[in-house]
Amino acid sequence: MVHDPGAVRLDAVTSVFDWLDTRADERRRAGLARRLRPRRPDSDLLDLAGNDYLGLARDKRVAGAAAAATLRWGAGSTGSRLVTGTTELHTELEHELAAFCGTQAALVFSSGFTANLGAVTALSGKGSAIVTDAYLHASLIDGCRLSRADVAVVGHADPAAVAHALRTRRTERALVVTDSVFSVDGDLAPLPELVAACRAHGAALVVDDAHGLGVLGPGGRGAVADAGLSGEPDVVTTITLSKALGAQGGAVLGPRRVIKHLVDSARSFIFDTGLAPASTAAALTALGVLREEPELATRVRSTALSLAERLRAAGLTVTEPAAAVVSVLAPSPELAVRWADDCRAAGVWVGCFRPPSVPDQVSRLRLTARADLTEGDVDRAVDVITRCAPPEAGAAS
Amino acid sequence: MVHDPGAVRLDAVTSVFDWLDTRADERRRAGLARRLRPRRPDSDLLDLAGNDYLGLARDKRVAGAAAAATLRWGAGSTGSRLVTGTTELHTELEHELAAFCGTQAALVFSSGFTANLGAVTALSGKGSAIVTDAYLHASLIDGCRLSRADVAVVGHADPAAVAHALRTRRTERALVVTDSVFSVDGDLAPLPELVAACRAHGAALVVDDAHGLGVLGPGGRGAVADAGLSGEPDVVTTITLSKALGAQGGAVLGPRRVIKHLVDSARSFIFDTGLAPASTAAALTALGVLREEPELATRVRSTALSLAERLRAAGLTVTEPAAAVVSVLAPSPELAVRWADDCRAAGVWVGCFRPPSVPDQVSRLRLTARADLTEGDVDRAVDVITRCAPPEAGAAS
Repeated sequence: MVHDPGAVRLDAVTSVFDWLDTRADERRRAGLARRLRPRRPDSDLLDLAGNDYLGLARDKRVAGAAAAATLRWGAGSTGSRLVTGTTELHTELEHELAAFCGTQAALVFSSGFTANLGAVTALSGKGSAIVTDAYLHASLIDGCRLSRADVAVVGHADPAAVAHALRTRRTERALVVTDSVFSVDGDLAPLPELVAACRAHGAALVVDDAHGLGVLGPGGRGAVADAGLSGEPDVVTTITLSKALGAQGGAVLGPRRVIKHLVDSARSFIFDTGLAPASTAAALTALGVLREEPELATRVRSTALSLAERLRAAGLTVTEPAAAVVSVLAPSPELAVRWADDCRAAGVWVGCFRPPSVPDQVSRLRLTARADLTEGDVDRAVDVITRCAPPEAGAAS
Repeated sequence: MVHDPGAVRLDAVTSVFDWLDTRADERRRAGLARRLRPRRPDSDLLDLAGNDYLGLARDKRVAGAAAAATLRWGAGSTGSRLVTGTTELHTELEHELAAFCGTQAALVFSSGFTANLGAVTALSGKGSAIVTDAYLHASLIDGCRLSRADVAVVGHADPAAVAHALRTRRTERALVVTDSVFSVDGDLAPLPELVAACRAHGAALVVDDAHGLGVLGPGGRGAVADAGLSGEPDVVTTITLSKALGAQGGAVLGPRRVIKHLVDSARSFIFDTGLAPASTAAALTALGVLREEPELATRVRSTALSLAERLRAAGLTVTEPAAAVVSVLAPSPELAVRWADDCRAAGVWVGCFRPPSVPDQVSRLRLTARADLTEGDVDRAVDVITRCAPPEAGAAS
């Protein structure tokens, strides 16, 4: 057998991915295996797991505009944004996003993930420094890894540590990169202190406002607007079109020269197909709805606060939500999964975050409020989540 | 002034992005500045610039299915694929893609860019080696940069160099990463030789078939199928849904254990919002059209060959197209831009590739054939491109 080259080769061919099975076993033993759960269009689960904060993904105006745009423009954008992938719809959305958020310009990407990669890499690079929060979103972390900059990761929400890292950097150019609302616990970054540290030390600030847009700030203009930083010449904001705006895609907002620079050099913009017309039109229409109904933003915040308060009153360990995300501590990855499964069996869909999706390796249930949740929905959610809580979660049963 | 801290601060705030203006000037001087050209829905330009190879983006069946899916499922997928972002549509598309391409499983991403990032990073990592072609697509290069693997870049289409790099690597695990059809010149990777090198040296092969699917292979099953490598246990294919399938998004196809591993560990899958229902349905329907009309693939290839032949006969330097991409050498970035602009003014839209989008720093016109181009369209394109050619391009006028 050893001397039969055919057999040796066959073994090499089939065994080249054997290490994946080992990894899968490790994950299974650690309670970290994941599986996809396709949803049905007619699911009657109460959804506290998605990021459709304003309930606009299924709004008839939004979905109708997406359908109409598909019939008018086609199903795909047909190319890179720099070739055939920019339609008038894209330009209109960019204009409206900038106007709404009070920045000079905006640039639409095919996802929030690629918007973050593009902003961080194009605005940093070799010979520059980046200072980031330890709880940064994965897409920003990957942007930093791709940037070739000197990256310093400091403690969570610690502007003094940011200032120290900026002060002691060895490069001229520097960027501070942060989420506005952190995706796991839903807490807020200290934006005023961060911008002060930046200005004291000649750095620019990049803020991912994915969970702030449509939820925080005047009329849902986001956490950057809420901090009075819209349109500042040294602040760049990234957003997603797939959360409060109910569509798909992402965007970068900021000074005109920043946006021009991204068009010329952001690889995840240049080498990616433009956002589909349907998603572009959906985001544009959702933005119009938010303009006309600013109370949607207020409503999602008060629902999140009410959810958190009532779960805490029931004895659970719950974060104070700054926006729509409510995080409930779970005793272990396995118990988090079982807890979420039990909630689902009882009709309430909650998120379950485990390593590696949590920066502190602590598992959680992750609930999201929506502007269209009724009081009855909140009652039902609190009842089910509390009833399904494992005793170790400290729930008063 | 120097002693007024307010003024100093204000200057710091406004000057933090001054370096972007310097970069913009450099690009302008080098003829490398880019601008977006929004297209109208009723444009009567002859499009030889997009990647809608089969003409399906505007196909009524495809666009109609996208519109219907938006109304049924909503404008957005509402969350990460692992939370609420997987609908039955996503599962059906994954099933159909795997069945069509002859692999065990498939996983849909929000773009081809993120599919490539996910496949390369999740299948490599620290302590492994990657060997790549020098002309790799940007998204694969970024995947390699993110991978923390030992990356060896070898010459273009050089399987002997790949074998050498594999033989001399210092790690157990190794991945060879290549485009099937290279995006700039449209030439084909030596897949049989690459897989032989992999098998001789215990490496797996990752092939980006973005420009092959729908164009090459039996019934448009792609370059991997054409090389007889569909379903091989050591081959992973990435594709895009935004070219031949006329939609948006990307996918990874391969052995079941590879796909399972990506679900558990590909960051650009886990931390990104799921593909919008409209794009998912569009790709699914386009795949059905391709199954029923396999002649679409044949037609786009013959149109590309005819375009190339006739432009070459007119004295231009044209690559031999392996698929739908036809590349025409331009004397300089500035002349390439002017040439493309002149074609556009004459009603023909061609792509213009300049550094940094070209691996060899040589500027080109980049034309793409489509299955729905008529002979009259080709006549018109050849006439305009030849007439607008700068004398330095060597066109017989």
